[in-house]
Amino acid sequence: MSSMPLDPDVARALAQIEGRKIDHVFFVACGGSLSIMHPAKFMLDQASARLPSDVYNAAEFTTRAPRRLTSDSLVVLCSMTGTTKETVAATEFARKAGALTVALSTEAASPLAKAADLVIGFEAPYTTGVPIDAKDSNYARIYQLVLGLAKMFDGVDQLDSLLGSLANLQAAIDRAHDSFAPIFEDFAPRFAKKNVIYTMASGADYGAAYSFAICVLMEMQWINSQAIHANEFFHGPFEVLDKESAFILFKGLDSTRPLTERADTFLHRFGSSDNLLVLDAASLDLSGIDEEFRGNLVPLIFFDTLWRFAYKIADLRDQEMLEARRYMKKLHDY
Amino acid sequence: MSSMPLDPDVARALAQIEGRKIDHVFFVACGGSLSIMHPAKFMLDQASARLPSDVYNAAEFTTRAPRRLTSDSLVVLCSMTGTTKETVAATEFARKAGALTVALSTEAASPLAKAADLVIGFEAPYTTGVPIDAKDSNYARIYQLVLGLAKMFDGVDQLDSLLGSLANLQAAIDRAHDSFAPIFEDFAPRFAKKNVIYTMASGADYGAAYSFAICVLMEMQWINSQAIHANEFFHGPFEVLDKESAFILFKGLDSTRPLTERADTFLHRFGSSDNLLVLDAASLDLSGIDEEFRGNLVPLIFFDTLWRFAYKIADLRDQEMLEARRYMKKLHDY
Repeated sequence: MSSMPLDPDVARALAQIEGRKIDHVFFVACGGSLSIMHPAKFMLDQASARLPSDVYNAAEFTTRAPRRLTSDSLVVLCSMTGTTKETVAATEFARKAGALTVALSTEAASPLAKAADLVIGFEAPYTTGVPIDAKDSNYARIYQLVLGLAKMFDGVDQLDSLLGSLANLQAAIDRAHDSFAPIFEDFAPRFAKKNVIYTMASGADYGAAYSFAICVLMEMQWINSQAIHANEFFHGPFEVLDKESAFILFKGLDSTRPLTERADTFLHRFGSSDNLLVLDAASLDLSGIDEEFRGNLVPLIFFDTLWRFAYKIADLRDQEMLEARRYMKKLHDY
Repeated sequence: MSSMPLDPDVARALAQIEGRKIDHVFFVACGGSLSIMHPAKFMLDQASARLPSDVYNAAEFTTRAPRRLTSDSLVVLCSMTGTTKETVAATEFARKAGALTVALSTEAASPLAKAADLVIGFEAPYTTGVPIDAKDSNYARIYQLVLGLAKMFDGVDQLDSLLGSLANLQAAIDRAHDSFAPIFEDFAPRFAKKNVIYTMASGADYGAAYSFAICVLMEMQWINSQAIHANEFFHGPFEVLDKESAFILFKGLDSTRPLTERADTFLHRFGSSDNLLVLDAASLDLSGIDEEFRGNLVPLIFFDTLWRFAYKIADLRDQEMLEARRYMKKLHDY
């Protein structure tokens, strides 16, 4: 099995953080970029006893102005193209408070990259149009940063295991495309006709469920959606469930998996299996990914494979994906 | 204008916390009770530079097992009847970690109250069937606890202003019922026919928007819903907006208000005002509530008044409210 070195941008950022007093980490972004902050916090929560953290939408962060934001804060921000104005404003706001700012962006010359103290680049198929290796994704970079922090502040060094796992991730994703293909083929004709499709997840997978709901189903297909937390489901949302309800359940491999197992049982008891698309990571060949990081890396597999499902739905609905937007990147005055 | 003393249960809890080292606050609950934890954290974020905090669904908390949970943690839990099994389990889990646990419940002899170190009672119309004064609600009690913590750990004493404001809150709610009644009367016939109704809010109001979406619209009326954060709206969800889309927008008075103003403008530009129910707290008579706490107390007004709207919808749909559940309190084996 292969491995890889620590990303040089991450290494540079960690070198700048070294020796600095940090007593809070803020993960700040909008929309799809915000969705990666949830699994980043999940990893930090389980890796560090020293660093408290928060995840905020960038405009919420700036207007809430939490008093914990000080010169002892590390603020990690992300915007793919680096042009999201709320995230750029949040960077400037954090720097004014004296915090150290680290921005993830695919564009080194973007407004976000220019506003931040430190920049970590990443790759996205969305911007280049060509497939990337998942080891170069935003998830892969932010996870390296998180475990670098845990090593520095808690003395827990899991970086080698993470790097080895990341190096073998793309192969696992490629195999997962084949595993899930028949399921997607089966479900696409039914889901293409739905007016509402819920996603459901817990733990490390919640961000991927959120992103698929708001950035794919709502944004690109105008299908009503919500990412329901797998346990919150039982405290209200489950009452909408009937034989026609469409759900995509993400059964991951982190320590919260029992929550999705309980939801799976309930969904199949009162829903119809025709409308319950269950993606179970336990069915996948994850060789090369260390046990301890399977839970953290599975959301990348879910999200990557689900794009193909989205394109299938788009074809059937005769609604192209990115071109289907009414407002985003079409209007410029909101 | 009247005032009121600090709640004796809160005072007792604060006395037990006094002198103890606390370096993290966890706000933990499920569903409707989880919804009050978001505004509690919002208040703590703006009142304390010393206390980091997290909000977790109770089952997520227990299975995630954040490493920040130690004997230096304060864990605040809530379950109305005190029988929510995930919240009781979270209390036991936190105590095992050595944390100090404070439970809010309407029932002093409930499993939750018995499991926790300290108990704070509150009143709910839901359990007693009779109207309560909002100064005795879960919000009112947890806010007193939060500001008691800020006083203790940050030396910022805003309790008198909060207590005075709480004493005058019910009168403001009663006036708001009258203000909003014509709006509810107007919108109910159209909203009763909708299959999807979104709620939208930011800051202190997000919890009320979440609760109305999952505990009222989804749970009691089987209407598809989601609480959309007012800025996240622009990063995906807004693409579902057309002239038929139904939204309930909570325009509050805290520092995040500009986010809802921007959303309001966009909604009215591309949606239809017939389907956009805007509750604007700026239109209300809030005399007796100090300026500094109007933003924090407005969600109680939104949530209380919206119950009447929910009953109107229920009448028109011929679907009773609490009796309409298929699963909750009807099934006992899930």
